[in-house]
Amino acid sequence: MTGGKIACILSEGFEDSEFRVPYEKLKKEGFQVDVIGTKVGEELEGKGGKERVKTEKAIDGVKADDYQALLIPGGYSPDHLRADDRFVEFVTAFERSKKLIAAVCHGPQILMTAGLVKGRTLTAWSTIQGDLRLAGATVRDQAVVTDGNWVTSRKPEDLAQFSEAIVKSLR
Amino acid sequence: MTGGKIACILSEGFEDSEFRVPYEKLKKEGFQVDVIGTKVGEELEGKGGKERVKTEKAIDGVKADDYQALLIPGGYSPDHLRADDRFVEFVTAFERSKKLIAAVCHGPQILMTAGLVKGRTLTAWSTIQGDLRLAGATVRDQAVVTDGNWVTSRKPEDLAQFSEAIVKSLR
Repeated sequence: MTGGKIACILSEGFEDSEFRVPYEKLKKEGFQVDVIGTKVGEELEGKGGKERVKTEKAIDGVKADDYQALLIPGGYSPDHLRADDRFVEFVTAFERSKKLIAAVCHGPQILMTAGLVKGRTLTAWSTIQGDLRLAGATVRDQAVVTDGNWVTSRKPEDLAQFSEAIVKSLR
Repeated sequence: MTGGKIACILSEGFEDSEFRVPYEKLKKEGFQVDVIGTKVGEELEGKGGKERVKTEKAIDGVKADDYQALLIPGGYSPDHLRADDRFVEFVTAFERSKKLIAAVCHGPQILMTAGLVKGRTLTAWSTIQGDLRLAGATVRDQAVVTDGNWVTSRKPEDLAQFSEAIVKSLR
């Protein structure tokens, strides 16, 4: 039982475990996870200094059509990514085809920038929860929130449940 | 011609120059600037690793009444500060008495969390501009925006104009 391909968008200062935990879970479950950054072969460091991850694809070389789902780890990474229109477009393409979008912690920031959160139900890092409410989303302060094609989560402590929920949505 | 006292709220990962440039300008103009953090005597490092700043006051030991104005440097600092209700309350107290609030880059994030941005006109770091619009603010993509008691700015390149605008508002 092998899975499909998952896109993981990543930039400097990602929250170390919010990359590592769902990444390992998805690999273990038979999915291919491509780490996508601005450039190919760039080494990105986690904010905690525990993880160094090399990008496998550049944003210019990928299409949402090639992937089954999108993973957005948190930390400082999402705010860097959303400053670049190409990543915002990439996220929007997953939403257009209603493919799974899994975002944790600060991950939903890029959903805000893409103008997608109004009327949706989700969760995020505590400070982002407030931003989401102001943007017209319904926010639940719980470990995992599933709303249609979106699976969202809050923080490192939620990662086991978040990873399970992603796999469940993919099957 | 000496000035009054300015409160500067700061946390880990502040944008180095967004602390240093307005801080030096205000000192040069005769103002006392107190660096306020979670604790007294904590050394905070800028995100660029260029600045190490020791906190002079703890948030529990200060009142907005003691200060003429509030300075909020950007970087990762504002998102850390707004996770702590005491800093959100402190910011709100400056707003209640219509004292000057000067915020640059990610600084306006804490104004969002305090629920103060709807109907106001301001600027911020590019990614935060989008959040502010979603929250009902009018956003101008220009170096400095003055709206009543608020002076806001976007990024390190704007700091000379930002610092001038703060001093002008204080005189």
